[in-house]
Amino acid sequence: MNRVLRIGLLGCGTVGSGVVALLQQGADDIAARTGAQLVLTRVAVRDLTRDRGLMLPDGALTDDAASVVEADDVDLVIEVMGGREPAGTLIRRALELGKPVVTANKELIASEGPELSAIAQAAGVDLSYEAAVAGAIPIIKPLKESLAGDHIRRVVGILNGTTNYVLTRMTEDGTSYEDALADAKALGYAEADPTADVAGHDAANKCAIIASLAFDSAVHGEQVYREGIEHITEVDIRVADRLGYVVKLLAIASEIDDQMAVRVHPAFLPKEHPLAAVRDAFNAIFVEADAAGELMFYGHGAGSLPTASAVVGDLIDSARNLMQTARGPVESKHRDKQIRPIEELSTQYFVLLDVDDQPGVLAEVARTFGSFEVSIAQVWQEGDEEQAQLVLVTHRAREGDLRACADALADSPGVRRVASVMRVESEVFDS
Amino acid sequence: MNRVLRIGLLGCGTVGSGVVALLQQGADDIAARTGAQLVLTRVAVRDLTRDRGLMLPDGALTDDAASVVEADDVDLVIEVMGGREPAGTLIRRALELGKPVVTANKELIASEGPELSAIAQAAGVDLSYEAAVAGAIPIIKPLKESLAGDHIRRVVGILNGTTNYVLTRMTEDGTSYEDALADAKALGYAEADPTADVAGHDAANKCAIIASLAFDSAVHGEQVYREGIEHITEVDIRVADRLGYVVKLLAIASEIDDQMAVRVHPAFLPKEHPLAAVRDAFNAIFVEADAAGELMFYGHGAGSLPTASAVVGDLIDSARNLMQTARGPVESKHRDKQIRPIEELSTQYFVLLDVDDQPGVLAEVARTFGSFEVSIAQVWQEGDEEQAQLVLVTHRAREGDLRACADALADSPGVRRVASVMRVESEVFDS
Repeated sequence: MNRVLRIGLLGCGTVGSGVVALLQQGADDIAARTGAQLVLTRVAVRDLTRDRGLMLPDGALTDDAASVVEADDVDLVIEVMGGREPAGTLIRRALELGKPVVTANKELIASEGPELSAIAQAAGVDLSYEAAVAGAIPIIKPLKESLAGDHIRRVVGILNGTTNYVLTRMTEDGTSYEDALADAKALGYAEADPTADVAGHDAANKCAIIASLAFDSAVHGEQVYREGIEHITEVDIRVADRLGYVVKLLAIASEIDDQMAVRVHPAFLPKEHPLAAVRDAFNAIFVEADAAGELMFYGHGAGSLPTASAVVGDLIDSARNLMQTARGPVESKHRDKQIRPIEELSTQYFVLLDVDDQPGVLAEVARTFGSFEVSIAQVWQEGDEEQAQLVLVTHRAREGDLRACADALADSPGVRRVASVMRVESEVFDS
Repeated sequence: MNRVLRIGLLGCGTVGSGVVALLQQGADDIAARTGAQLVLTRVAVRDLTRDRGLMLPDGALTDDAASVVEADDVDLVIEVMGGREPAGTLIRRALELGKPVVTANKELIASEGPELSAIAQAAGVDLSYEAAVAGAIPIIKPLKESLAGDHIRRVVGILNGTTNYVLTRMTEDGTSYEDALADAKALGYAEADPTADVAGHDAANKCAIIASLAFDSAVHGEQVYREGIEHITEVDIRVADRLGYVVKLLAIASEIDDQMAVRVHPAFLPKEHPLAAVRDAFNAIFVEADAAGELMFYGHGAGSLPTASAVVGDLIDSARNLMQTARGPVESKHRDKQIRPIEELSTQYFVLLDVDDQPGVLAEVARTFGSFEVSIAQVWQEGDEEQAQLVLVTHRAREGDLRACADALADSPGVRRVASVMRVESEVFDS
């Protein structure tokens, strides 16, 4: 028990400070679990003068991140700087030096994860990133280890707390999108520029990481089909409610024959689905596997301490492995599945049309749907003398057909505007 | 990749058959993940003549389980026979021979887990048992690995599918306990003798395993305070509903200062709690940790394939470790917390009294509560001319005081019967 492992920390913002606190509070426990004292020897920060309220070893702070990676007195590296560079270069170098890396960097893993894992594998060291997806919720480990002997068919996640908070307010309080987003900013859930959240970029990155592990195939963030929640209206929310659905921003990774589908978009989700009960800024991931059946993982998807908890969990695994000159589970991309284009997926759709309230419009709309082989499951009309709204829910249809149909509807006599088109994810998500 | 690891299987009932199927279907995947071909060389069964519909290697079947453990051509042992003996003796022997063991045996782990883990540690091999708690739901690994750097305060679980099914039917359909249990038997959820489920023994065993890991302290199944659901009536369910609660059989493991509390009993749970939405035979485990916050794990808690999925997940970890002459995380019981007796815990209570409908009874009941320092939060009376029912919900009170109060009430003039006493688990579960 007098072995020591020396930790280099890249970044000491809110997550990094949380990591330092957990390492210090849990020192004895961690030693009992790893067989080594974990000692923080070097910490790279941007601003050397800022007071972080932490007790750090004398001389540990530096603004030269590369020096931390290279240091002889650093055995393991934790990266919590965020962003693709210089984090990527630093992590590659650490792995090449044979130093295990724990990172919380979803952008980097979503864009270069499979490549970095290959470097780690070649160097025979661990690269772990539980904290990169859904904060403290264990999802990387279940996909990579617990379900390693099973066959995962589909993963559906609510992976972005900001958008889930906004949609919850819109649903439960009838708040407008703008007001709900302003609340999210006031509560610190949303950034001043909320684009990464509301446009679905953040969820798409996490979706890529999940798909990559679930289907043993490399998926990059930019390959994920993506729509945000910016255009969701109170009418969409109200219609969904009336039909027995809630609107959620879903990240869906599914296997379809020998291909996979990866997509992030708002959708109607049945109120009875376990994900429908995930409120406010919580995250959850619903997994369907052949043998295990349905599983769900729920919790805080972000925040300094939840993320730090996941980082330290990974660190303990890596430290234990390093003490034994062993390695954790390797990632295999041996299935090498291709991504099926969104146009070729099938699901149900909700379509909302602003129409003239005059005879013949419904017949014309119905004819247009028919001509694109999109069959209508439900339809109703509402509105005043001046303008009416036509609400339609289709049976399962090919996305390509539905899109062509929506384009034709927009040019159709009597149709003023295609106000909304949204996927309806009933029991069968796609085929 | 031409390394081979040879597996000995103890037991080939429904779970064992599931394991064989997963090992055969997933052979290539498993080889990609472990770096070895996993080959089933020996299978111990009770009845050599039964057709299990499986393809097993010629001569693999034997009715001598000990010979499987001892065999030179067995590197790893899977135990899915169930029951304490001979499983315990076989597992101890396998560990002493340096053979990693994967087991789904909750009875055995709940009674001898800490001792078996110590033997495994001394022998330097893995003993894993994800399948022993909540089927395919990863909970052992999150407690032991993901949250290893965090501090777990409380774990609350719905850990028995049979009882959750019965309570769901009673709640949603107004079915009586007897009819709901008969349905559970017809559906195969309950055994012909359902005692282990309905009296809470099964949940208590799982609670012990969870507490043991969450608090790094040895807990045995028989140390868990236990009440079953046999006495729950339609009135209890109806009153709970009216007050905003559902009745669930909860397994609660919590840390209280330097002690811990471990208990399984039916309780009123607020409808808003994520566990309240866990219906039918599903299981779920709600974890509260200092840094991670609230987490929930949900899924199928039993069944041949879900359990087999967890067994094979563990097997892959063990095989990877064996290939590297490494070990998975060891269990540390270094905190050695003691169990606080149920009488010293505090919570709220629901009390239902059959009383004479005559003046002065309520005053006498209220006086009795007061004399035991149990303060009343809510009270109402209902009933006909002949007999009335008094429904009371207390503020937080010591269990010991509440019990003395209930005894005194039973002897109180005007009180015909203490019909129900049940714990009300609001936001604060205990202190």
